[in-house]
Amino acid sequence: MSPRKIIIDTDPGQDDAVAILLALASPGDIEVLGITAVAGNVPLHLTEKNARIVCELAGKPDTRVFAGCSAPMLQPLVTAEHVHGKTGLDGPQLDDPTMPLESQHAVDFIIETLRNEPSGTVTLCPLGPLTNIAMAFRKAPDIVERVQEIVLMGGAYFEVGNITPAAEFNIYVDPEAASVVFSCGRPITVMPLDVTHKALTTRARIDRFRAMGTKVGDMVAAWTDFFERFDMEKYGSEGAPLHDPCVIAYLIAPQLFTGRNINVEIETTSPLTRGMTVADWWGVTNKPVNAHFIGDLDAEGFYDLLVERIGQL
Amino acid sequence: MSPRKIIIDTDPGQDDAVAILLALASPGDIEVLGITAVAGNVPLHLTEKNARIVCELAGKPDTRVFAGCSAPMLQPLVTAEHVHGKTGLDGPQLDDPTMPLESQHAVDFIIETLRNEPSGTVTLCPLGPLTNIAMAFRKAPDIVERVQEIVLMGGAYFEVGNITPAAEFNIYVDPEAASVVFSCGRPITVMPLDVTHKALTTRARIDRFRAMGTKVGDMVAAWTDFFERFDMEKYGSEGAPLHDPCVIAYLIAPQLFTGRNINVEIETTSPLTRGMTVADWWGVTNKPVNAHFIGDLDAEGFYDLLVERIGQL
Amino acid sequence: MSPRKIIIDTDPGQDDAVAILLALASPGDIEVLGITAVAGNVPLHLTEKNARIVCELAGKPDTRVFAGCSAPMLQPLVTAEHVHGKTGLDGPQLDDPTMPLESQHAVDFIIETLRNEPSGTVTLCPLGPLTNIAMAFRKAPDIVERVQEIVLMGGAYFEVGNITPAAEFNIYVDPEAASVVFSCGRPITVMPLDVTHKALTTRARIDRFRAMGTKVGDMVAAWTDFFERFDMEKYGSEGAPLHDPCVIAYLIAPQLFTGRNINVEIETTSPLTRGMTVADWWGVTNKPVNAHFIGDLDAEGFYDLLVERIGQL
Amino acid sequence: MSPRKIIIDTDPGQDDAVAILLALASPGDIEVLGITAVAGNVPLHLTEKNARIVCELAGKPDTRVFAGCSAPMLQPLVTAEHVHGKTGLDGPQLDDPTMPLESQHAVDFIIETLRNEPSGTVTLCPLGPLTNIAMAFRKAPDIVERVQEIVLMGGAYFEVGNITPAAEFNIYVDPEAASVVFSCGRPITVMPLDVTHKALTTRARIDRFRAMGTKVGDMVAAWTDFFERFDMEKYGSEGAPLHDPCVIAYLIAPQLFTGRNINVEIETTSPLTRGMTVADWWGVTNKPVNAHFIGDLDAEGFYDLLVERIGQL
Repeated sequence: MSPRKIIIDTDPGQDDAVAILLALASPGDIEVLGITAVAGNVPLHLTEKNARIVCELAGKPDTRVFAGCSAPMLQPLVTAEHVHGKTGLDGPQLDDPTMPLESQHAVDFIIETLRNEPSGTVTLCPLGPLTNIAMAFRKAPDIVERVQEIVLMGGAYFEVGNITPAAEFNIYVDPEAASVVFSCGRPITVMPLDVTHKALTTRARIDRFRAMGTKVGDMVAAWTDFFERFDMEKYGSEGAPLHDPCVIAYLIAPQLFTGRNINVEIETTSPLTRGMTVADWWGVTNKPVNAHFIGDLDAEGFYDLLVERIGQL
Repeated sequence: MSPRKIIIDTDPGQDDAVAILLALASPGDIEVLGITAVAGNVPLHLTEKNARIVCELAGKPDTRVFAGCSAPMLQPLVTAEHVHGKTGLDGPQLDDPTMPLESQHAVDFIIETLRNEPSGTVTLCPLGPLTNIAMAFRKAPDIVERVQEIVLMGGAYFEVGNITPAAEFNIYVDPEAASVVFSCGRPITVMPLDVTHKALTTRARIDRFRAMGTKVGDMVAAWTDFFERFDMEKYGSEGAPLHDPCVIAYLIAPQLFTGRNINVEIETTSPLTRGMTVADWWGVTNKPVNAHFIGDLDAEGFYDLLVERIGQL
Repeated sequence: MSPRKIIIDTDPGQDDAVAILLALASPGDIEVLGITAVAGNVPLHLTEKNARIVCELAGKPDTRVFAGCSAPMLQPLVTAEHVHGKTGLDGPQLDDPTMPLESQHAVDFIIETLRNEPSGTVTLCPLGPLTNIAMAFRKAPDIVERVQEIVLMGGAYFEVGNITPAAEFNIYVDPEAASVVFSCGRPITVMPLDVTHKALTTRARIDRFRAMGTKVGDMVAAWTDFFERFDMEKYGSEGAPLHDPCVIAYLIAPQLFTGRNINVEIETTSPLTRGMTVADWWGVTNKPVNAHFIGDLDAEGFYDLLVERIGQL
Repeated sequence: MSPRKIIIDTDPGQDDAVAILLALASPGDIEVLGITAVAGNVPLHLTEKNARIVCELAGKPDTRVFAGCSAPMLQPLVTAEHVHGKTGLDGPQLDDPTMPLESQHAVDFIIETLRNEPSGTVTLCPLGPLTNIAMAFRKAPDIVERVQEIVLMGGAYFEVGNITPAAEFNIYVDPEAASVVFSCGRPITVMPLDVTHKALTTRARIDRFRAMGTKVGDMVAAWTDFFERFDMEKYGSEGAPLHDPCVIAYLIAPQLFTGRNINVEIETTSPLTRGMTVADWWGVTNKPVNAHFIGDLDAEGFYDLLVERIGQL
């Protein structure tokens, strides 16, 4: 089977970085057609730069990186430097990238790619706010039916709320975009906080990256060291959730994940609950299924995969 | 110490019934000034009747029972016969009560009692929608500061939603009333689904009621038998949550419960999330604390208390 | 024909005062069963006092006056001292009333009266926020079908907004109560700003009150002098709208008014438009008719009626 | 003075057609850089075709016409065939256009033009839903500060509602886009229903077009004949409001129009009031001015201008 063609839409972010590394380390499974940056964890000029830093770290400077939207569809941008640090990739500093940013707008790259590739062969992998994806869908509605699948990190059900009591960060930043995506009619697989909070970076797991003895392994260990401080202080957990790599791991090894096919709608109107993924986990409504909502994973298998693949970079 | 004076505001319901029994079985700890019925699980004419049935079953026909509001403050009534059965107390049928219903409106009884008793000596124990309490607060605002504490069953945080994906039944039925109560400024202790779902009726626990060899014990066993069918089918749990008795148990043995002092607001505007208790469990907002939100209990201790007390009836 | 029995629910307010005078001056047409005060233009302790001042001014100290709710059903009270002055009846000061306030709560008086009078013989005339009426309807739903008609001052369509760009004061203060009333199913006639802004106090009209040479005439002239300053400054109009007397005039001389039978719903959720009377004047929805929405009046005929009747006090 | 450079963003529509004719007939005042079509009155494939029909009718087949968004930013498209007929230009049928549609997306044309022309020299003239404009602003936020002015037809204050009781069609179709535009920070002049309903097509006015004895004059007369049927039946008015030509007339002869500088916000959340332009005409809020809201025009002067200019085509 030929590798699955994907576009990674991302706002790195340490966990986005690990997701990108996992994808670039898996050429037998995944072909990264391009990486599209969006404003989210930090502003756009940092997320596009961070994406290129990660590609160079992976030894893949030929990866195409595009800058997209610098603000959500409707609301002002909210960022998360309190989690990711000022650069979005805080931890040991890496050199500025030398590989170029593509001149095309990310939204147009998404549109063009979906039009040029055979219909049903391109998977979108959003790891941040859904602005770029929704803008592409609204600018060029013909592309929607050409999408193979959307596998995204975002939302929460039982683990409601990391940015407000009701909402997860990626969805909260651009609920209108999320609403466009969740109602698009194509297959959607969601990695919510419910599953990512079971993919914790423990001491032992971080040590496996450090033990690789490679620059990439050292960086992953250092990033997760930095990243986990926030969660350990806030939630008292034994590590940090490696949110975004779940998306890529699911493409490679879906058997590691379990979930339910349910209705998920995005709250856009109420100030108190804006950005909530209202997920009908228990089937109390009669609304149609529109998402594969992941609830659990084999955390050891997930970290085994990460170590095996990233060790090859 | 003299017993704590309470008003039980309730819409029985099998679990309400067990809560009433627990209170009436604990005269050394609790003085039930009156029971006020409200529409909720079933319509008002059934909840007031059920309250009297339970008082007679407990051998306390002198307990004063009042009928209150037959519909929420703003919206049409929603009921839960799918959980509690057509009568609200489905299971083995009991005779119609012979004790009278008080002629005074429940709202006026609440107002008069709070005005007549020394300020700060009466605790309100709502086990259903908060209509009666909010109507009393709005009709006679002077009573609010005279309330000692409100200990209520309602809401959810991690265990979001038993009637919609976002809302628990009691709050969903009358979110406007809940908003009035949660913003009243008096101490509030909340028993949300998060804790009541840890107070499950297992086979062994139900058998302890049946083993009492009393009519009351048989009824409690039969009610919980009936009641748990819904949850076991819906959630695949090993029993049903005995929601409402948590409120009374907390008054008798608060050491069985643990929670957090947090901000809780009630969503009233969005169709998707109406009735949600937006609980800042993780402290991500700077909003002031207005509720003691219970998250866990000693389930064995709780059932020990239930068995010990109800065995005395 | 025997006089029409009404309850005036009011928050005086100079224009409320003129409405009360008009009603008390028309015993052949109207029997005032009682006046119920509500918080609105000024707080409750002033509106109930002002109601009694007006009854004494009219020489009707035997009129029964009741105090009702001191705050809206859900939100904190908003008042309008910028229009009516600090007392609500600013202008020449009148002595404190000597007639007593009834001890019964206004909500209970409304309920009791509707239960005691033959069904379909009592008209409710709300001149302020609809809190008392809605609380009565919710406390005792059986009374709703016994109401003959509700004739109220409130709302706006073309003349949107005197307190916000979208809302008229009476509805804005308690939109939840307004929603209860507008959905109650009984006949409702509405005097919105659209008609009251055509009932302006001009110089010539005020002079007719002053020319009566009575204490009542002098007070009405003085009140309208005070009252019109606000509107003349704000809207550049030639006088002030005598809002509330339109309600009473309609009961006496409905032929002075024209309107449409339309659907009117109350906006309760959006911060921008809360309290708006969303009136389907042009029939662009298919929603059922629930209100007789008045749009125009014979202003000269209206002032003729006022002068004729008030001149008799 | 050199002609003012504009982009007309439009969903023709008979009144849009007249606006385009007026602009193309006024080369001394206005340079039409391009016409961008958007879905609105009818679907996009008709609005772009209609725009080209009108250019050919005006004898200006070299005008550049671009197709833009086929649906609003968030909601499904709502159209208005009940007003404009099935084609959007119902009336005497014109041949299909032979001039080509530009291949560039309208959103990209707007972005490129604003970047290429000197900053502050291009005026945007939206005559339909604001989707294209808002999408351009969100895709390329750098262009916003380069806009000279936005002069648009949309909204209402006193004349609330032609599609719902609270909303005007253009804003209702895409309130999210309208919200982006009204909060963009650049000067905005608004032609709401309040003014356009004073620009009625009377018999005498339509006859002036017919009297031109030109194909263009005949078409304008025929279109307005068709168009006015809806308003005359619905509102009982003596003709139809020529909405969109007000925008172009304002650029040529601003002295024909009077309005106020006020705050205008767009309601996006409430089902009842979605798409309302909440306009603080009376200054009851303290919100900052963001729009020049036109309230009146010299209707005779307006029709004189139309006849004079369109007569030259």
